[in-house]
Formats: sequence, structure tokens, C-alpha cells
Amino acid sequence: MGISVGSGRPVRHGWPQLRRLVGSCGTWRPQSPASERRRPCRAAVRPWQRPGGALHTARPRCHDVPLTCERYGLRRLPFARLGPGDAAFFEGLMPGRACSDPEELKSFNVDWLKSVRGCSELLLKPKTAAEVSQILRYCHERNLAVSPQGGNTGLVGGSVPVFDEIILSTALMNQIISFDPVSGILVCQAGCILGKLNEYLEERGFIMPLDLGAKGSCHIGGNVATNAGGLRLLRYGSLRGTVLGLEVVLADGTVLDCLASLRKDNTGYDLKQLFIGSEGTLGVITAVSILCPQKPKAVNLAFLGCQDFSRVQETFTTCRAMLGEILSAFEFMDEKCMELVEKHLGLSNPLRGCPFYVLIETSGSNSSHDEEKLNSFLEQAMTSGLVTDGTVAVDDKKIKTLWSLRERITEALTRDGCVYKYDISLPVGKLYDIVTDMRARLGQSAKNVVGYGHLGDGNLHLNITAESYSHSLLDAIEPYVYEWTARYNGSISAEHGLGFKKKQFIQYSKPTEAVFLMQRFKAMLDPKGILNPYKTLPSSP
Amino acid sequence: MGISVGSGRPVRHGWPQLRRLVGSCGTWRPQSPASERRRPCRAAVRPWQRPGGALHTARPRCHDVPLTCERYGLRRLPFARLGPGDAAFFEGLMPGRACSDPEELKSFNVDWLKSVRGCSELLLKPKTAAEVSQILRYCHERNLAVSPQGGNTGLVGGSVPVFDEIILSTALMNQIISFDPVSGILVCQAGCILGKLNEYLEERGFIMPLDLGAKGSCHIGGNVATNAGGLRLLRYGSLRGTVLGLEVVLADGTVLDCLASLRKDNTGYDLKQLFIGSEGTLGVITAVSILCPQKPKAVNLAFLGCQDFSRVQETFTTCRAMLGEILSAFEFMDEKCMELVEKHLGLSNPLRGCPFYVLIETSGSNSSHDEEKLNSFLEQAMTSGLVTDGTVAVDDKKIKTLWSLRERITEALTRDGCVYKYDISLPVGKLYDIVTDMRARLGQSAKNVVGYGHLGDGNLHLNITAESYSHSLLDAIEPYVYEWTARYNGSISAEHGLGFKKKQFIQYSKPTEAVFLMQRFKAMLDPKGILNPYKTLPSSP
Repeated sequence: MGISVGSGRPVRHGWPQLRRLVGSCGTWRPQSPASERRRPCRAAVRPWQRPGGALHTARPRCHDVPLTCERYGLRRLPFARLGPGDAAFFEGLMPGRACSDPEELKSFNVDWLKSVRGCSELLLKPKTAAEVSQILRYCHERNLAVSPQGGNTGLVGGSVPVFDEIILSTALMNQIISFDPVSGILVCQAGCILGKLNEYLEERGFIMPLDLGAKGSCHIGGNVATNAGGLRLLRYGSLRGTVLGLEVVLADGTVLDCLASLRKDNTGYDLKQLFIGSEGTLGVITAVSILCPQKPKAVNLAFLGCQDFSRVQETFTTCRAMLGEILSAFEFMDEKCMELVEKHLGLSNPLRGCPFYVLIETSGSNSSHDEEKLNSFLEQAMTSGLVTDGTVAVDDKKIKTLWSLRERITEALTRDGCVYKYDISLPVGKLYDIVTDMRARLGQSAKNVVGYGHLGDGNLHLNITAESYSHSLLDAIEPYVYEWTARYNGSISAEHGLGFKKKQFIQYSKPTEAVFLMQRFKAMLDPKGILNPYKTLPSSP
Repeated sequence: MGISVGSGRPVRHGWPQLRRLVGSCGTWRPQSPASERRRPCRAAVRPWQRPGGALHTARPRCHDVPLTCERYGLRRLPFARLGPGDAAFFEGLMPGRACSDPEELKSFNVDWLKSVRGCSELLLKPKTAAEVSQILRYCHERNLAVSPQGGNTGLVGGSVPVFDEIILSTALMNQIISFDPVSGILVCQAGCILGKLNEYLEERGFIMPLDLGAKGSCHIGGNVATNAGGLRLLRYGSLRGTVLGLEVVLADGTVLDCLASLRKDNTGYDLKQLFIGSEGTLGVITAVSILCPQKPKAVNLAFLGCQDFSRVQETFTTCRAMLGEILSAFEFMDEKCMELVEKHLGLSNPLRGCPFYVLIETSGSNSSHDEEKLNSFLEQAMTSGLVTDGTVAVDDKKIKTLWSLRERITEALTRDGCVYKYDISLPVGKLYDIVTDMRARLGQSAKNVVGYGHLGDGNLHLNITAESYSHSLLDAIEPYVYEWTARYNGSISAEHGLGFKKKQFIQYSKPTEAVFLMQRFKAMLDPKGILNPYKTLPSSP
């Protein structure tokens, strides 16, 4: 057969420093009033800059980003406003860590995508749960709103203030509390940076159970608060299973210590789960206990071409059966993605002429066993016609080069024009139909309609590009894409959460009874609504 | 080396039909009033019969089991009592499936251990969530209490009425709704029997992600409601990660449809998690969506002897590192356990003279790879002195025979006398210290103090036997065992839940703030407290 482990042809470009590079027009739809709903924002037309990146045009200054409240014509809820007494209280509580310097506050008021901007006048950097407790108790009594913030890498506007909420940053809560190499359980404060935790663990023969493009700056507390998915979910499962315990401070300052380091604990309701994925609206996560897998000793990567999507699916089921426990990623992308990667980034596709491409990663404890399994699978896939061409990499450099073909699609899309981005979960069998449907529906009004994503997780990234932002194109996409997703019981937010930008679309994925119950939980845990207001849930009727 | 795959010496006995065979004195402590607290119950002294088993003495008749309310001197909460109008309503709603025949009700009123007995006069067997909704709406309006019941295999008295609660059985909600062989996601009604689901999946190349001794009769809805652990947790994780969706009927009859079949969904709070492990006190689970792993193609089992517990631990970390992704179970037992298995059941221990024994199971997709990995590990373990003797099985019969040495410990203990049983989670490093401490503490007042369990999950089964039930022995054990567990941040219920029997001990594993919050959730979701009253949470202060 033409492909086997080690036969990978070289491709040209290196591993991108950042995996997540793109803003989104589609998610910036104004919400209210109705007259505001179609007003395009300046930043929405070409907002895509790599933060601090030399490769692209310069970042816009923070003040170029319109204030969220003005752009969306929002009404501030009746929280108290900061007074001199408040500043004095916080300065007394945490000297030197209560910042009201407008310059320092700028970057904390704007999201990573430069798509939303708040006007907070106070940034607090507590070091302990006790300090967070004192802050929230005070804010609760004073009716001051608070916006918890981790690494500020979220994509749905959940991590920055909408108005003048106090920013509560976890940046200084960055201590590792314990690691047990017998159980593999790590306990750390919420502000620990994901990448640093992974480095710490790798030195001890373990890895974090999640991996994200933003790992260089995102905080584990933010990961948990947003139930981050990422690249290792197929293998190690979601944070719902790997997070074993949390320490959370509630809106009234109560410290909820559920920081268990146990794989099994059936004593009452599992309260921590409510805070995983609640996006800072129910409590502030201050510490995390998480189960970490061992670092794999061998990694292989295969890049294969398929003639149609049904073969992509069958390749997945075949490789899952044959690779079994060593399969760690199954990503797919259509040929349009590859064209854009070649055209805009100059990357070289080592394969040609396939409508679909898949990336299959194995991670295991024995390299020769893993290579043998992979070769058996590849032979089967080629012989049966599932796959028409392919290349395999085993060394780090080649693996990274191949991965870049998948990882840099986002970047290529930003160079193609204005991008309308959707991150949806669907039953695997339906995963590509929405791309085909959308392509037919939009016809010449879209420049490109592409689909790629984590096929193994049923997570599609549907992206539509156009020369410029257009109301009519947006109207042709939405709510069609949400209705389509809802029709097949999909999720309109697979891994990014709802934050500020998607909260009004929750009903496409959750029934009324569920949304109502969520609102009751919010009202019970945060009766004054001071925690991350204007986020996650639609306003109560 | 002396051991390698295939060299297992034959041992004598077959696979037990039932893995869980034993009642418990320890968990039968009366709760109130204080004067009642030390009254032993007749059934507690020698309650251990294999259900329907020919091997043991006959089962006690249901009426031999004292009524829970009388034994514990409990006061009935002011729920309404069933009247003729109620019976007519239910008979009209579900003709032939609303049973008030005292004979048929008997077995539904008594738990599997014959340790608690209610006096319900009505058994309902709905077939759909809509029927459950109508039942609960009616009961909510009428203030009638309800005891949801799955396969009635629980060990903490959670699944039978305490007084005259209506029994809502999921027995007829036994339909498989869908299975997707691409994603491995199964959707089924709550009353499907775990073992039957597993058979259904095995025919399609998959397995359930959990396995329990009670699989022949337990319902998947009950498994989820109690967050069952079991034998596959080390490999496939807990139900927190594998359950993808639930359909739940709330106390007021509201149907909460969160039956998603998606690996990723970040649209709002994950409500289903609150019902996982809530033991029927927050809602009635009517359907489950669950992610199922592939059926492994190869299984190996090694039975090894270690000279001390530190070597058991090191054997675990070594084998985890060397077996990696194929390790599927790591169980341990002390030599006392083996003595009892030999003495009372006539099983033959293929090894001799070791203070500790471990069972290591591998499951993988390639038998020769797995055997090679296992042999490398065994050589390393023997060479380094971690393990002093061992035997390995690869064929089904030998595997079952070796497993029986571990699985029949419970049965052997029941033959040793009155058993005080504790099922606790501890940090792995502390797992055996409680056994040593307890042995020293109890001295001659106990017959045997043994420890065994799921070391890989940090789950210890501490068992103490005595010739007969004794108040003073119980006082020497409790609350010492709970205090000890709490001191090391362990859990007093690793996998069995709190149910009726352990609800008053929750504070040993959960802080006051957490228990208070649980009570608020209960009050919010079930304001009249009609769902499974007297269970899981301590009464509000």
C-alpha cells in the first residue's frame, strides 16, 4: 500500500503559535431593540487580528471597539455605582491589587476577539477564596455587579463587563495546591494557566485531560466555568467526568468547599456540576480538583483523503474499531478548507483531488504496537476504498506540520473575507448535510461555505465567507442555521457557551421548561443577579 | 520469569451468578429516637441469603422484615392518605397497571437486602413519561408521597417506601429508543435492565460503560439515579461523563426533556447532572442517553501477590504506566479475604503466603499487543520485587475463575458471621491504613477485619465480622470509621449513595454549606417533599 507509518511526505509550514485566530460577524447580531438588530459594527467587518501577531495587521486599539452597551442599545440594570467608599474598602482589603487605572483596565474591558467592550472602572485581583468571599459579600450587600474573568479568551463575550461591572480576575490565584502521582489528581487554584499546568504535569509523566488553542493564557477556572471542550475530548471525555471537585464562592460570599480529590463520592447531590459551564453566573470558581491521564509515550498522525462524506463516516467507524483505545483525535475538513489554506497561507496539501480529508491521531503507551495498529487500519482503509490517498507522520515536526493543515483553517478563513462562524453539535450522520444545504441555499451570495471540525465528537465548524458584511446574507443564514440544528436535536453551542452573544438563542437547543428551571437556579443562587449579569440566560420574561 | 500470559494454574470454582450477596449490620443503625438507636433487628444478625438461591438457606418471607417505620420509631410526614377516588383515578389512567394487591406489593415494599420494609398500598407501572407526568401532577396536587423504584437492588434502603408512599416502578418503561453505531450513543427508557442493554450492545460491537453485580435486575434509570459506580469505572469513567442526556419528570409533573444525544452541548446549565445521583428525590428519570464504548476484542487477567501495601500501590503505578490505555481494572484484597474465601467457599488460592493480592485486567483491541504489554509489566514487577508470585488467565473460563476469588469475598464474609460493612473512598495512599487501624482498635472484639476493593478508584470495602451483632462493637466502629474517613477528606459513601440508611452521616463528607444548598435545591424542585421522602438528605433543621 502507498501509505504507512513513516512515509509522510514533507509539507511546508510550521505549527501555528495560536490555534484560535478568528472573530465572527455572525455572532455579533445586535439583540435589541429591534431597530438596532441589523446595524453592522465597524469591528465586525474585518476584526481578525492575531493578538500581538507580527503576521497580520496591527491590533485595533481597545477604544476602537465600540462599547457593548452602546452598540446593542442596552439598558443598565439597577445595580449600585461605585463610590469612593467602595474603592477605599477594596484597597484596604487587598492593597495594590484593587486597580482603577484606566490604562490598566483597558485590556480587561475588551474581549480577545475585540468584539465587545465594557467600561468597568475597577479591577480586583484576589489571591485566595477568602478574599473572593469578602469581595462578593461586600458586593452582594452593596448591590454591585461583578464580572468574573479568567484568561479572557472566550469567544462569546462572556468574560468582559457589559457595563461597569467590577472585574474580578483570577490572575493571581495561580498556585498548584497538590498533585498525587498515584491517583493522577491535581488540585490547583482557578487562575492557573492551562499550559503551565500541562508543563508541570508532563514533568511528572501526566497531562491535563484537556488541550485548547488558548492554553498559553486561558485559566483552568475559566475552562471549568465554560466547560471547555478542545482537542482531547474524544479520548479523555469532558470536564463533567474529569473534574472531581470545585471550590466555589457564591454570590453572597458563601464559600462552597466541594474540592474533593476522590474518583467516587455519592454523598448527596453533585453541586459542583451546576457550576461547570455556568459561565460565572452562579458562583466564582476559586479552585479545581481534576483527574489527569498519563502522558502518552507514542503519538502518530495520519492525514487521509476520502471521496465523499459517507466514506469519512465509515473511515471513522473503521478506525475506531481497529485503533480502539489508542485513537485520540478524528478531525475532518472539506476540500474548500484545504483550498483556502493553500491559497491564503501557502501551505501545501500533501494529497490532492479529494472532496474530504481526515486527520487521525493515535496516542499510546507502545510505539511499535501503535504503528502496527495504524498500519493495519490504513491497509484496510485503502483496500476497501474508504480512503484514496494518505500520508503519515510519527516525528514531532511532521506531526505538527500535518496538524497545521487542520489548525490553520480558521486563519485562512479570516483572509478570505468576512466570516460567519457557527460552532454546532449534530448527530454524526447529519454533520455535513448542513454545509451542503447552506451552500445550495446561499448560492452566489456567499463566497465560500466550508465545513470542518471534530467529527469524533459530532462537532462541526460551519463557516461562511463573503466579501463584506451583509444584512441580507446574515438573514439568509440565521435563524435557518439554528432551526436546522434544532430540527436534528443538535446544539447551537457545542463548546463555546452562550455568554453575551448567544444567550437569546438558547431556545433552539433547550426546551422552555429547562430554560425556566435555569432561571430559577440563577434566582436562587444569585437573587440580586450581581454575578456576570447580561450573560448566558435570556432575560426573564 | 515464573508467570506470563497463558501460564495460569487452574483453580476450582466457577463464576458466581451474583456478585453482590450480602446484607449489612452496620448500615442498619436506627436513627431516632435515641432510645431506639441500638436495638438490633432480627434480620440484621444473619440476613444473608442469595435471592432465590439454592446454595443458601431460604429467603425470609417479606413479613419477617420489620416495618422500617416501626423499627426506627419514625413519624410519618403529613402527606395525604390514599382514598378510593385515588385508586379510581390511577386505574382509569393506566388500566391493569395500578396494583393494590397486597401479595404483589410485598416484594416491592422490601429491599433486596431484606433490611427495610415499607407499607405501600399502591404500585404503579407507567409505560411513558407522559403517564409519569400525569401521576406526579396528580400526586403533587393531592399531596401524595411517591417512592420511585427501579430494579430495587440498592443497598442503602433508598428504593422502597418508608411508610405508605405510592411505589412508582419503572419496570414497564423498558424500550430501547435508539442506538447509533457511529457515535455509540444509546437512548432508552429508564426501566431497561442493565444486563439486557449490554447484551443488545454486544451484538452490535459495543458495551455499556458500567457493569454491576446487580446487572441482571437493576434498571438503567436506577443506575443513573444512584450514580452507580461498578467494575468499569477505572476505564470508562463515571456516569457524570458518559450520560449525555436525561428525560426527567419533576415533582409537579413537568417533563424536563434534556435527552440530548450529543457529546458536546454548552447551552446553559447542565441540569441533568443534578438528577444523576439524586436517588429519586428531585425527579423521576424516565429516559437516558448514554455514550457506549466499543466491546474490547481481547481481555487478560493477572492475579498477583505482594508483600506489603506499599508494593500494592507501586504495582498499581507501575502497571498503569506500562499497560497504559489497556488497563481496565485494578482490584486488591488482603490475605484475610483469601483465607475466608478458601475456608468458607472452598475456593483455591493459586498463590500462597502473600499479605496482599491484586487482580489486574486488561481490555484492548489487539490480543498479541495486550499480551506483550502485560508480559513486559509482569517481568518488570517480578524482577523489581514488587510482586512475588502470580498467575495469568486469557481464556474466558480461567478469567472467570480468577475473578471469583475477588468477587466472592462478600459471600465468604457473610459465612464468617455478622458483618459490619463500610464502602468508603480515600486517597489511594491512605486506603489500607483504616484497615490496620481498625484491626488494632478492635482487637479481640472482632473476629476478622478485612480490606479489599477497587484500588484504582480509591474505593475500599472495609468489612468487620463478629460472631453476632453487638452494640459495643458497633460503638467501637462508629463514628470512628466516619471520623477517620473525614479526617482524610474521604467519602463515607463511595458508590452506594445515602438512601434511607446513611442520610444522617452526610456531614462527614460534605460541609454544612453544601448540605444546606442541597436542601434548598430539594425545596425548590419538590416543595411539598413528595418525592422519595425520608431519603438522601438529613431532615432540615
